[in-house]
Amino acid sequence: MADAPFADKPTLFTVMTPSLLHLYDLKQSIVVIIDILRATSTIATALHNGAKEIIPVDSIAACIRLSKQMEAVSAGERDGKIAEGLQFGNTPFDYSREFIEGKTLVLTTTNGTRLLHMALAADADEIITGSFCNFSSVVRYLGNCKKNVILACAAWKDKINIEDTLFAGAVVSQLKGDFTVNCDASHIAASLYETAKTDLFGFMRYQNASHYHRLMGFGAEKDLRYCLTHDNADVLVKYENGRLKACSTE
Amino acid sequence: MADAPFADKPTLFTVMTPSLLHLYDLKQSIVVIIDILRATSTIATALHNGAKEIIPVDSIAACIRLSKQMEAVSAGERDGKIAEGLQFGNTPFDYSREFIEGKTLVLTTTNGTRLLHMALAADADEIITGSFCNFSSVVRYLGNCKKNVILACAAWKDKINIEDTLFAGAVVSQLKGDFTVNCDASHIAASLYETAKTDLFGFMRYQNASHYHRLMGFGAEKDLRYCLTHDNADVLVKYENGRLKACSTE
Repeated sequence: MADAPFADKPTLFTVMTPSLLHLYDLKQSIVVIIDILRATSTIATALHNGAKEIIPVDSIAACIRLSKQMEAVSAGERDGKIAEGLQFGNTPFDYSREFIEGKTLVLTTTNGTRLLHMALAADADEIITGSFCNFSSVVRYLGNCKKNVILACAAWKDKINIEDTLFAGAVVSQLKGDFTVNCDASHIAASLYETAKTDLFGFMRYQNASHYHRLMGFGAEKDLRYCLTHDNADVLVKYENGRLKACSTE
Repeated sequence: MADAPFADKPTLFTVMTPSLLHLYDLKQSIVVIIDILRATSTIATALHNGAKEIIPVDSIAACIRLSKQMEAVSAGERDGKIAEGLQFGNTPFDYSREFIEGKTLVLTTTNGTRLLHMALAADADEIITGSFCNFSSVVRYLGNCKKNVILACAAWKDKINIEDTLFAGAVVSQLKGDFTVNCDASHIAASLYETAKTDLFGFMRYQNASHYHRLMGFGAEKDLRYCLTHDNADVLVKYENGRLKACSTE
């Protein structure tokens, strides 16, 4: 068949919600954690602005305890707002270079942290984080890696969302020539991105995306626009030994 | 907010895979079972052609036993092929009026039957089946029902597929004015359908849809084209008392 996938290419799958992660073999794969609004956008921004490292934790209690032990900044949200007892929230604008450079951030978020720990429990070969903020670093790294890739969307309490799907679609659109993409979710995501790409913010508004409403309700239009912009914090983010760190894309 | 949903409209949600069904309350809802390739297309066709009723069962063994007891036709597939021990498969072209009129069909399929039984176990208020073959009957019924709607895709072994998503999107596109659609999966499905609608078969081919390959591998292009065509077996199909039957859309 002329359009059959080439067996020697690595595979790429899109997992639109953590509820589907168990269907995929993560052991031989790089897993890209995607939580566009706003965890992985904020992570890229803080590391791009010189944060020493980010430690993602499951609970608010762990976030408070660990940040005190390490004299680190505590940050996190629940249901899109700063969680009680923490110093900062989940908006990328909290993490300017003046503030965050050289510091350690202990972070807990609703969906992104949970997914990262699920990927870890499933023995992912390698974990990186993805956002439009660091899009080019992500695709450059994946394009060079010659490994299987799982694009894992954090979604919203296990329900599929538009923004994480759009990012997965952007990656698929860019990399489909380098991978065997025998995965309908990837094709759906890429088609959505192709429809939306000229104006991601306008698309979110037009589609009445659930997260668009949630964040606009908090007055976070600036966050939304920032998190839907390519490469404003273009750094590769890897998770190793319990820490997210900026890395070279080579 | 100008574009806030009207509280007095019923809600509409799209569930792209059975793995997500538990996130939704089915008790107050009409659940539309969607298994385009090919269970729900074949069901519409057989009933449109005068089958007395269709009894969906979980297992091949139950299908053989029950069809013998009832002197009914046994049919079903596993992984897209006629299951061993059954008389017929899952292609709509097996169920012409000459053959099926007045007969009872006992049917088991890989994904659709399982989803139907999941919806039943979750106390769905009402269950109907949806396919492009009976598109107009489905949207007419849902548009008149003034009840909450769950569009439930059978998917493929819990992985999201293009064809079920396209059908959900077609329904959303048609009915979005009548429902509160605060559901990103519905918006994604509708956007996909809008992109694909001028040539659904061509879209499936272009997207390299996994099921497109699976069925084309069986030589089932005719099935594929048929199952992606609107209203060629336009009958409303309801599930009641263990049976799928043709009903009035009023």
